[in-house]
Amino acid sequence: MFSSQAGGAGEEDKSAKFTGWAAVPGGNGVLQKWSYHPRPLAAEEVEIEISHCGVCGSDIHFSTEGWGPITRPAIPGHEIVGIVVKRGEDASHQIGDRVGVGCLVSCCRGTSVCDWCRKGEDQFCQNKTVTFSSPYKDGRGGISEGGFADRIRVYSDYAFKIPKEISSPEAASFFCAGITTYTPLKRYKAGPNTRLGVIGIGGLGHIALQWAAAMGCREIVAISGRDNKKDEAFRLGATKFINDKEQIKEAARSLDLCLCTNASHNNNWEEYLSMMAPLSQLVLLALPETPITFVGSHLVSQDVAIVGSHLGSKGDIDEMLEFAAKHGIRPWIEKRSFEDCNEAMKDVHAGKPRYRIVLEMNPSSSSTSTS
Amino acid sequence: MFSSQAGGAGEEDKSAKFTGWAAVPGGNGVLQKWSYHPRPLAAEEVEIEISHCGVCGSDIHFSTEGWGPITRPAIPGHEIVGIVVKRGEDASHQIGDRVGVGCLVSCCRGTSVCDWCRKGEDQFCQNKTVTFSSPYKDGRGGISEGGFADRIRVYSDYAFKIPKEISSPEAASFFCAGITTYTPLKRYKAGPNTRLGVIGIGGLGHIALQWAAAMGCREIVAISGRDNKKDEAFRLGATKFINDKEQIKEAARSLDLCLCTNASHNNNWEEYLSMMAPLSQLVLLALPETPITFVGSHLVSQDVAIVGSHLGSKGDIDEMLEFAAKHGIRPWIEKRSFEDCNEAMKDVHAGKPRYRIVLEMNPSSSSTSTS
Repeated sequence: MFSSQAGGAGEEDKSAKFTGWAAVPGGNGVLQKWSYHPRPLAAEEVEIEISHCGVCGSDIHFSTEGWGPITRPAIPGHEIVGIVVKRGEDASHQIGDRVGVGCLVSCCRGTSVCDWCRKGEDQFCQNKTVTFSSPYKDGRGGISEGGFADRIRVYSDYAFKIPKEISSPEAASFFCAGITTYTPLKRYKAGPNTRLGVIGIGGLGHIALQWAAAMGCREIVAISGRDNKKDEAFRLGATKFINDKEQIKEAARSLDLCLCTNASHNNNWEEYLSMMAPLSQLVLLALPETPITFVGSHLVSQDVAIVGSHLGSKGDIDEMLEFAAKHGIRPWIEKRSFEDCNEAMKDVHAGKPRYRIVLEMNPSSSSTSTS
Repeated sequence: MFSSQAGGAGEEDKSAKFTGWAAVPGGNGVLQKWSYHPRPLAAEEVEIEISHCGVCGSDIHFSTEGWGPITRPAIPGHEIVGIVVKRGEDASHQIGDRVGVGCLVSCCRGTSVCDWCRKGEDQFCQNKTVTFSSPYKDGRGGISEGGFADRIRVYSDYAFKIPKEISSPEAASFFCAGITTYTPLKRYKAGPNTRLGVIGIGGLGHIALQWAAAMGCREIVAISGRDNKKDEAFRLGATKFINDKEQIKEAARSLDLCLCTNASHNNNWEEYLSMMAPLSQLVLLALPETPITFVGSHLVSQDVAIVGSHLGSKGDIDEMLEFAAKHGIRPWIEKRSFEDCNEAMKDVHAGKPRYRIVLEMNPSSSSTSTS
């Protein structure tokens, strides 16, 4: 299937054709092979030959139209790793560089830069373009297409050099699950004084436990509904495992910081809040499907915060990659071929992976790739 | 009416009898004259002859049994000002000192001190005793009685010396409305970079506007359902007044910090959150009567926090009083006689005062009292 819709109202580079797996309107989340002409390569852009892409819950929410109807074929995928194969004359990478791309592909460009970009918090830029199905706001038109594909073109400031210590398939998950968990731990100063909770031990939670251990958190409490994750949680860095109401009661007022990675409607906010110590933060990393509800006294009597956390900045991503390389932190992944992306999506939806699925383009060689 | 229930299981000083206005079980919030024997004066305690006491929403919630049933007569009042007339041998004040008492009258005592007391955040101490109807946790038994009375005995570290610049009736409101609004502005570093919102212009909000002006906040946005408060809001320090949905829309993403002083069920949390800038805090100062509900995306996409704030520490109260003295900040009050406390409670419940009612024991002389 080929469609000239790609690129929206923007100019297309007819000499190039990228092929991937797209969600389609009414497709029930089943991805279909689909090709598009990318935008012409700009001076600051690179073209990446994709070797790997992680599968995230967001790809499923989007593809199944759980976040609203799709109006055109659209390629998901935002945990992208590959090799630079073309570069514009002002791009910061060289051909052959091994790079990763996460949830954003553009923010303010040129000389007119918003306050958030100036502060180095580009994740809050209102001119940002997310990695898939997002109209570009850079004046060149077009709509972004994601990483379940053979190639992608992005501004080179959104392609991050991967440290040589980290293999390509292992690098992929850092670009969403990794940065989403790293940033709040950094922002709220997780360290030797921190009694940390992690709610939900999955794609995000299993990396959060590892960050916390490397940051030297005093206590690392894994909070999960699934008792069969207990042993692995300890191996990942947890010092305590909580999975029932009795244990939640015993943990009253004991957490200085807690990351909630659970987006299901099962979240019991009052139970979570009861575990929070005075002046602590309960951080939402995943977008719950149902409204958040709780009685105000949980917050008012202890100065507890419920706070969201959205990705991280470009600077945070660089820092995270160095930190992961230095401390030997790696996602636990299962590799699948891109051709099997639909089965992978089903397994992620069912919560099966331990703990992240990464699609690979060339299963025989890529897992040993280093830059 | 006299009852020997006062003091609970603790020892009573039969040589002393304090008289006040008490809420009674099933009394519909109508206070009745009532006397009790206080606890014996401890070495660290002072006895205060009360000249003034502010009327707060909490006194009404409590007296009308909106926070749960009352089982015995209980004297409300926690914005107390008076003169030290007796002192224990280890008390930090002298006879004749003019002091105020707020929402707490005791925390950890002696050598066994909790982490929060050690950190100077005694408002989170689990051994604290609030000013009225609260069983003492100091091992001496008894139940606290509040400031709608002629006298009170408290530990001298919870009696705060009042700067001479502040008159007694004006001092009263600082001990609850003042400290409740001062602490979050200090904690979240309100200053020249802050675009501040204040939701609800009443007892708390009218002091918050004044703190914000003295702290030099860049913008001070008064958000109120009552258009007739507009002129006064500007006189109190507001730089902008918002009172309809259109203005809320225009204020999208514009507040760095916002204090919510409105405890009614009319709070529209999603509207409030829509006004918050990335990395901002919406601070709850009053305890809403109904659960707080909102869609998580408001928090997650902008790293916005909903956070509670509970009073302030002893150190915060000292600092606040100095700040108020230095910057000429005063509550706007209406004075009433203690004998008229029931009428005052009714007026507060109806939101009538502009902006705080202070009861006084000796209307003819007290308003000019200075220490």
